[in-house]
Amino acid sequence: SVNPDLASERQTASFSVEKLTALLDGGAEQTRIRRAVVEAIESDPVFSRENQYFQTQNERYEAAVRKAVHLQKKMHEMGWTENGPEYKYIYRALSGDVAFLLHRVFMRSISVLGSDKQIAKWIPLATQHKLIGSYAQTELGHGTYLQGLETTAVFDTATQEFILNTPKISAMKWWPGDMGRSATHTVVFAQLYVHGKCYGIHPFIVQIRSLQDHSLCPGITAGDIGPKMNFEHIDNGYLLLKNVRVPRENMLSKFCEVQPDGTYVRQGSQKINYFTMTTVRISLISDEVLTPLMKACTIAIRYSVVRRQSKLKPGEQEAKILDYQTQQEKLLPQLAAAYAFHFINDYLQELFNRGYREIQRKNFDMLPELHALSSGFKAVITQHCTAGVEICLRACGGHGYSMLSGLPSLYTKILASCIYEGENTILLLQTARFLIKCFMAASAGQPVPPSVTYLAAVKHGKCPAKNKLDFLSPDIYTEAYQHVAVRLISNTAAKLQDLIQSGVKKHDAWNQCTVQLVQAAKAHCHYIAVKNFAETVEKLETKAGIQKIMKHLCDLFALHGIFSNTGAFLHDGYTSAAQMDMATASYLDLLAVIRKDAVPLVDAFDFTDKSLNSALGSSDGQVYQRLYEWAQKSPTNQMSPAYERYLKPLLHNTLSKL
Amino acid sequence: SVNPDLASERQTASFSVEKLTALLDGGAEQTRIRRAVVEAIESDPVFSRENQYFQTQNERYEAAVRKAVHLQKKMHEMGWTENGPEYKYIYRALSGDVAFLLHRVFMRSISVLGSDKQIAKWIPLATQHKLIGSYAQTELGHGTYLQGLETTAVFDTATQEFILNTPKISAMKWWPGDMGRSATHTVVFAQLYVHGKCYGIHPFIVQIRSLQDHSLCPGITAGDIGPKMNFEHIDNGYLLLKNVRVPRENMLSKFCEVQPDGTYVRQGSQKINYFTMTTVRISLISDEVLTPLMKACTIAIRYSVVRRQSKLKPGEQEAKILDYQTQQEKLLPQLAAAYAFHFINDYLQELFNRGYREIQRKNFDMLPELHALSSGFKAVITQHCTAGVEICLRACGGHGYSMLSGLPSLYTKILASCIYEGENTILLLQTARFLIKCFMAASAGQPVPPSVTYLAAVKHGKCPAKNKLDFLSPDIYTEAYQHVAVRLISNTAAKLQDLIQSGVKKHDAWNQCTVQLVQAAKAHCHYIAVKNFAETVEKLETKAGIQKIMKHLCDLFALHGIFSNTGAFLHDGYTSAAQMDMATASYLDLLAVIRKDAVPLVDAFDFTDKSLNSALGSSDGQVYQRLYEWAQKSPTNQMSPAYERYLKPLLHNTLSKL
Repeated sequence: SVNPDLASERQTASFSVEKLTALLDGGAEQTRIRRAVVEAIESDPVFSRENQYFQTQNERYEAAVRKAVHLQKKMHEMGWTENGPEYKYIYRALSGDVAFLLHRVFMRSISVLGSDKQIAKWIPLATQHKLIGSYAQTELGHGTYLQGLETTAVFDTATQEFILNTPKISAMKWWPGDMGRSATHTVVFAQLYVHGKCYGIHPFIVQIRSLQDHSLCPGITAGDIGPKMNFEHIDNGYLLLKNVRVPRENMLSKFCEVQPDGTYVRQGSQKINYFTMTTVRISLISDEVLTPLMKACTIAIRYSVVRRQSKLKPGEQEAKILDYQTQQEKLLPQLAAAYAFHFINDYLQELFNRGYREIQRKNFDMLPELHALSSGFKAVITQHCTAGVEICLRACGGHGYSMLSGLPSLYTKILASCIYEGENTILLLQTARFLIKCFMAASAGQPVPPSVTYLAAVKHGKCPAKNKLDFLSPDIYTEAYQHVAVRLISNTAAKLQDLIQSGVKKHDAWNQCTVQLVQAAKAHCHYIAVKNFAETVEKLETKAGIQKIMKHLCDLFALHGIFSNTGAFLHDGYTSAAQMDMATASYLDLLAVIRKDAVPLVDAFDFTDKSLNSALGSSDGQVYQRLYEWAQKSPTNQMSPAYERYLKPLLHNTLSKL
Repeated sequence: SVNPDLASERQTASFSVEKLTALLDGGAEQTRIRRAVVEAIESDPVFSRENQYFQTQNERYEAAVRKAVHLQKKMHEMGWTENGPEYKYIYRALSGDVAFLLHRVFMRSISVLGSDKQIAKWIPLATQHKLIGSYAQTELGHGTYLQGLETTAVFDTATQEFILNTPKISAMKWWPGDMGRSATHTVVFAQLYVHGKCYGIHPFIVQIRSLQDHSLCPGITAGDIGPKMNFEHIDNGYLLLKNVRVPRENMLSKFCEVQPDGTYVRQGSQKINYFTMTTVRISLISDEVLTPLMKACTIAIRYSVVRRQSKLKPGEQEAKILDYQTQQEKLLPQLAAAYAFHFINDYLQELFNRGYREIQRKNFDMLPELHALSSGFKAVITQHCTAGVEICLRACGGHGYSMLSGLPSLYTKILASCIYEGENTILLLQTARFLIKCFMAASAGQPVPPSVTYLAAVKHGKCPAKNKLDFLSPDIYTEAYQHVAVRLISNTAAKLQDLIQSGVKKHDAWNQCTVQLVQAAKAHCHYIAVKNFAETVEKLETKAGIQKIMKHLCDLFALHGIFSNTGAFLHDGYTSAAQMDMATASYLDLLAVIRKDAVPLVDAFDFTDKSLNSALGSSDGQVYQRLYEWAQKSPTNQMSPAYERYLKPLLHNTLSKL
């Protein structure tokens, strides 16, 4: 039975939850397919995550391998293929708790970087799981800056082999997934040396474990890097190479080849590679970043209508905590952000599909813009969503801190997204470099890519809002965001030029502006996100209440950004203090409006109880019962030797006899 | 041998590290005592934390019990007593990883709430560990709002007993430490009923486990609440009571007593109780909040001078990451905050000692101010330091995410401090209530406590700064902080009055102002922290470079607060945009200045390598070697059955035979 405090929230929905779910999925047919996949996965006990919070790292790893192996069988049974419409829902249905994800990266890197011959040799072996692949790029002392990698691959013309080595401890490969305990092969990135000359970083296929008995190959030292904040199911590994020899054919050679005599030949354009990197950044947003935030919102909002605490009005019963303005102000902006980023993800996907078509026609013009947008949004979205999950966790008080709430795991998982696939600060600085370049070009009257044409039209007006309702006009707030982005970009460009003109060297000047460059890049992305949300709302059908509630969320997303960063809008007087007070009033009013639909808005994310795996967030709101039942299953409720060994002697005053 | 990249940082210290350590300790003699305690604890293998990151919750709990038991012996051996000067350093030296902390709370609650007779009976039993105590207040459905607790204690005149019950699942006691597996007794808070009338919450001593064999007593259901984000070493427990009878004498009766005929008698003043609560909030700041932040700063800053990445200047070697402005802007403000909060902690301690003396003289005048300051600073400091630790973690990239860095545990531990001993938002609203009251009083010309006299002298001037150097003047920035605090408090008071005058009911009006009330309370605390730091610096001796570097940190703390919250200072034009640009310039300049002393500034915290327990932060900077050595010890480097069970059949294509 559903907790009446939760049930009542659903009776007053101002819109059709089912219609909103279909909108989020991209159509009712997609919803149907997704639900079928989820049902098939969740009804299979092998895929259960029930005991996850009680398991050790070893147990998590083993379960992930078991699931990966079982998934092969399942896909065959269900008739799911890698190109079928179900495929993209499988990983999400498993909540990512599955091994061999790097096996796919191994295959992709061979497909992209390998010659036709290499593809013909390795891809069938990998597809049939006659080997397990990994991808060894990051080193103990080297991450984002690939040119700094220290692993070496020296070509030996005599034997026609590359000799791979880890010359220093900082050169040891560190972090590659599936490598600690599973992989038999990996793609190693190393500095290529031929006849004493360094040709930079190249990829080499290296076997690391025996296909017979899984023992480490000669010259290989490898293992697991140990406990992490999350990802216990993944065997992130280390790898030391000592004079490991691989045949000449093992250097992936679509773009560069070392010929038998040691001649180094470069062929084709590598530009497509950069595109791969940007694609990965975009593709992780949905499953790795938005899904955790949406789950956290679901858990925290459902809990907040079931949990009652203190009295809002004297004499009444204790109030639902979501009725407190402070609780609304914590949770509802996170909900709005989840929707905002869902729509910006659609925008980015579409842009990338367009980019891909152009690139296939050998037109690389869109690459810089795609790189800037994917870098900036990867950083902004991961940062925003990580903070959002933490807010959800803390908003649930003590129970949020229990692993059984599901929130700690969501937080520790999403936190990693700020670091992997490009550290966020570095990514934002890449976006900033693009913005500064475009601003200079636009100022000089040169053409710039579509997303930054606004930099050409710098206006010096004032915000025209006259009352608080004006701040519910998308034109008003979108203009304000645009103004802030232009100001931050142009001011930083000016500071950079001033420094250089005053004699500071270019690289020093850049470093001295980086804190502000990061702000400028964020402002640009925030503007694009607000503008895109407003444009999306505009295009929605007005039926079933969807457009109306989405408009509220769009307003909240925009006004929350203003309220949390008032200085940016006040700085040059574009927005006056009086207008800021109006924006704040509208913002606070909106909280109370959206609060009414909070539960239907998270219901629309359509997570099953099994996928939430949370004692606080289940769809029936039976929070306390579930916490109690679940806690009883904890291994800490089995007998511990602490009593016989310590407590009994202490209580019986026989400690001295120990 | 010390990594030369770390060693070079120490050679250029602008001040005496040893002198600064002594200042932080409160004198060289204190430093000596602290080091002796740390040495004694760390040289004893029973207290080792070496394998902590590899242990399960069960293993952590058992180790904590072992340590607690061993500590009794150790104290005897060393001649340490609970009233000796060493005592306060023991818990810190153990990094809190020890059981039976609630046993102390059990004892304190009897001492404070019990009659002389009760104290005489129970305290010796507890001191001699003839029982193990806990403290059962929080319930599954009830935390901060004590009046809402649902556990009942009904007086039975016939048997002269109280009958305790958990009438609903939400009434189950939940979270009490030491209760899940260890405690034999606990203090249960329950609604007292006599002859059908409810007298509110009262404390009862209840035995829950047999002293003979530790089995649960009749009517008791108890156990461990399972996995949490941290505090694995503590057996936080649950407790269900079913018609559990305790004698009349077990109600703690210093302030209220139920006489044999059921007559309820209230005696004495309970005001001292509120003081206990405020004392706890202040006492946790040092060990539970500041120490984790100081450790995180030590780890992240040492790592940032050892880790090199990318090139700052073309042609040079890769740069230390602390040389990047963005990295400085992440870490150095956290360092400044650690010092700022260390000094505000001194201020609060002193205030509380004064308050305590007054209260002993039956003068309770200081209570409201003490309550407001302890609530506000508990919230502000825990929030700021939690965010600071997270920044440190993320600033270390992938390695910060490894448990072996020590940073994940620091984060998950400090995060809890935002929730326990009063949820932060609720505490800030209590501070705000005090501020609004004082503002109204001050406006009416009535006297107000010393920390809020500034509310009486509202000035409408402008910031007088003329260039960026003016923002290094404590008068300039302290005034600015004061102005913001006054504005936020007075504006919110005005909004509150307007709402009430327009017919909104008082409680609704309060709720509609809470988001802004929280901001006002934070601004007040931030102002006091800045003012106190500036005044502390003023009083320091100018010798040995201490005052100079502390002045830099004070400036940084103040300017970081302005830079991160420009809107508050710009809003009413107190600070102009041009002045804000000056403040920003000074802020960014300061980063480069303090960066030079960053390592000596964390060295002064004087943490041993064992207490940091971090592969990234050790004093010799041998980061990569230590990560590698440590990872090899992980249980994930033992054989897992995954190979035989799954990988081998997969690779050998014999899965179908499974």
